[in-house]
Amino acid sequence: MEIFKTAIRIERTSKSSIFSQVSKGVVHIIQRGVLKPNDRLPSVRKLARILDIHARTVVAAYEDLEAQGWIETLPRKGVFVSSVLPTIKPIKLRQNNEARMDRPTTHESVKRNQKTSTKSDLIVDDGFPDHRLAPTDLIVREYRRLMKKSHAIRAATFGEHTGAEELRVVLSKFLRETRALPIDESNLCITRGAQMGLYLICRTYLKRGSKVLVGEPNYRFANDLFKECGAELIGVPVEKDGIDTNRIAQICAKQKPDLIYIIPHHHHPTTVTLSPQKRIALLEIVEKYKPMVIEDDYDYDFHYASSPILPLASYMKGQDVFYLGSLSKAISNALRLGFICATPSAIERISQLRRLVDLRGDTFFELAMSNFIKEGEFARHLKRMNRIYNERRDLMYELLNNNLADRITLMKPNGGMALWTTFHKSIDLKSVSAKAREMGLVIDDGTFYNTTKVNLNSTRFGFASKDEREINRFVDILQILLKR
Amino acid sequence: MEIFKTAIRIERTSKSSIFSQVSKGVVHIIQRGVLKPNDRLPSVRKLARILDIHARTVVAAYEDLEAQGWIETLPRKGVFVSSVLPTIKPIKLRQNNEARMDRPTTHESVKRNQKTSTKSDLIVDDGFPDHRLAPTDLIVREYRRLMKKSHAIRAATFGEHTGAEELRVVLSKFLRETRALPIDESNLCITRGAQMGLYLICRTYLKRGSKVLVGEPNYRFANDLFKECGAELIGVPVEKDGIDTNRIAQICAKQKPDLIYIIPHHHHPTTVTLSPQKRIALLEIVEKYKPMVIEDDYDYDFHYASSPILPLASYMKGQDVFYLGSLSKAISNALRLGFICATPSAIERISQLRRLVDLRGDTFFELAMSNFIKEGEFARHLKRMNRIYNERRDLMYELLNNNLADRITLMKPNGGMALWTTFHKSIDLKSVSAKAREMGLVIDDGTFYNTTKVNLNSTRFGFASKDEREINRFVDILQILLKR
Repeated sequence: MEIFKTAIRIERTSKSSIFSQVSKGVVHIIQRGVLKPNDRLPSVRKLARILDIHARTVVAAYEDLEAQGWIETLPRKGVFVSSVLPTIKPIKLRQNNEARMDRPTTHESVKRNQKTSTKSDLIVDDGFPDHRLAPTDLIVREYRRLMKKSHAIRAATFGEHTGAEELRVVLSKFLRETRALPIDESNLCITRGAQMGLYLICRTYLKRGSKVLVGEPNYRFANDLFKECGAELIGVPVEKDGIDTNRIAQICAKQKPDLIYIIPHHHHPTTVTLSPQKRIALLEIVEKYKPMVIEDDYDYDFHYASSPILPLASYMKGQDVFYLGSLSKAISNALRLGFICATPSAIERISQLRRLVDLRGDTFFELAMSNFIKEGEFARHLKRMNRIYNERRDLMYELLNNNLADRITLMKPNGGMALWTTFHKSIDLKSVSAKAREMGLVIDDGTFYNTTKVNLNSTRFGFASKDEREINRFVDILQILLKR
Repeated sequence: MEIFKTAIRIERTSKSSIFSQVSKGVVHIIQRGVLKPNDRLPSVRKLARILDIHARTVVAAYEDLEAQGWIETLPRKGVFVSSVLPTIKPIKLRQNNEARMDRPTTHESVKRNQKTSTKSDLIVDDGFPDHRLAPTDLIVREYRRLMKKSHAIRAATFGEHTGAEELRVVLSKFLRETRALPIDESNLCITRGAQMGLYLICRTYLKRGSKVLVGEPNYRFANDLFKECGAELIGVPVEKDGIDTNRIAQICAKQKPDLIYIIPHHHHPTTVTLSPQKRIALLEIVEKYKPMVIEDDYDYDFHYASSPILPLASYMKGQDVFYLGSLSKAISNALRLGFICATPSAIERISQLRRLVDLRGDTFFELAMSNFIKEGEFARHLKRMNRIYNERRDLMYELLNNNLADRITLMKPNGGMALWTTFHKSIDLKSVSAKAREMGLVIDDGTFYNTTKVNLNSTRFGFASKDEREINRFVDILQILLKR
């Protein structure tokens, strides 16, 4: 009976009730082959004594085990392991150091932990919105209201895999008005974020060996995704006014690419905007060679210099243009919401995959967002954020440029949420980043942005999520770090 | 100048400002090749007259166009289309009926709309939790608190692709205590829901031609997913006490399957629970033939008959077991949150893909959930829900069984949220479903559950989301429908 004492460990502080700890323990003993079918179990009183628990707890455990089919109580004979269980070979009891599933000694999560910062650290991100300014109250109020309503189940039950219909109707109107996209709700699939949109399109349309034209440098997770789908990347230099369209035309003349990936506003990571000339050149190229185009316009709503330039997709006849956007940037990068805009037949095909990847989004959040957009709150919020982010951009740009122009080069972007900053070649960004951390400043060391073998010695400084005080503190610390 | 009048349509009710409508209109005219580089544009005053708008609005539009590089103002000469734009062939103006991207005449969304119900309809779902009873206030309060905090950006910035670390720590403790899984946070990847967990595993490990053993019938979206990954399905009958393990052993003896997919608690759609005997048989099979196993235990927390049976994964040495779970069932099926439990190396590999599919989840929601679990609220909520759902199961089962036993066959499940109901062969479920809709009752017509060619003439009646009044109303209507 010693096995019961060692195998059943009663933890009185555990969330599991004691009877259920006993019952689970007995199951494990049977599983390990220590007790075989028809073996007798200790009597209620005996097991209670062994485990130092109340007899009624053992009764409850035995009843539970009987209900589950593990044991049988024979009147006036005792309690036995069920006769219908197949005999199994005993499994060696695990040693303590086997208790966890296999674990490499330097697991990634450990490395990540070491990198984790403390509360007082100043974190300069890659270009995130300021979640402190998000219209949380408005959205949350609407969310709660929906959760309490009986008929809201409709939305959840018939939650379409392309996203709540109400949101698609409202969003298509918003996109017609802001981007001149000739679309309605049948042209939209709501996703968790622009990244999921990109994933769904690539997984649906790319094949092993597909040729994909990408900017150089380019958004890393897009490149990783194209490779994951087996595509071959063809890099095209990104200049100050956007991707080199002459080069694209040359490539297209020689070999037909399957896909051209474009970030028209505030290219990631370099923040440049595609010029009108290049946009027209691209339209001509697409007209002539008919490659598939993904226009990743995640940043359209944040353009400060002038009105943003209309999407390529607003000029195209549809068939092969996929226009990607994000609403997360307007709220918080935690509340992720994006969309794919394409022909209804493409949306239909993509939504088949969307369902298998993630069934559907958070329908109540989608409905709350659709109210938010419909009532004009979203447009007002965007206006307010544009004003604030514009000021923050100017402040961070001027502080950096006035104080560090001989050590860093930076361009003032027309919009977006980050400054692309190149460090003088005499400065090692990696060691600056490491030293910064010691001073309570977290900045990226730039390796993430090196999508080719070239070390760009550059990083992105997100200004949007920082207020005036934080921007000042950031530049102060950076000045100390870069002091000659 | 007629083109300006036809191509620029001022809509005063639009959200776009008027100057931006003008500016976009001019861009479109240039794009379409109607105006070419160096062509003269109408003067400010002239365009204002043509469009019947204020001259200052035209000035603003022209300034905007100049900033974007579309036009040039030559002092004392006038306004011209930029000389550096490449000349392009005119694109034919779209006809009205071309205004939308291509659209098939009977689009799926139209069909779906016809199926959409009205507010007063009673919808019997596939087995959803009752979102009206969700602890929305607690979660929402925590969510708002986090959104306002400066340092919450840490979580969002370093949001790990395996999910917020705090949630993984708390959840692994919860799973150790409730399911005896020998794990810690390095064994977990948080997903949007169990479906995403399944997707990530399959896409990472299945290859074209992989052999997958599945129950017959089986959860449709799992089957669809296996096929999407190119796998070959081998069906194994599901009996009253779970999948036929003898059949699995026979198959394994002949051909090594790559994956066995198991739903141990309340198999979808038939709601049966795997018996302890079959569980042991499965453990033996896995020990002997070493196939990969996915244990989809989405319903573990909702078991009413006795304690749920411990997962297979709690007995296995790890390597090839993937344990899937869901937290959405406990809250609302809109707030989707699931997890994969596997070896750290498998989690690492899967998280690479998770990042490309969806970057990360909603970090603030994950943190709010981790507080909710940590403080014991989650366990208390589960207990309360189990009590309520147990009562609802009993009520719906008894009402149906007492009143319709000669027309339907149904089994009382040990847990879960739905009753699997088979209609007498003289009754056509499809026409019952159609007639029900006319009476304000929405029930599935059962085709979704026919994963093989056999028409099961069965459907699932979700009891968890319905209160006493609704359950009574449902059975009343069904009785009228099935009256002989």
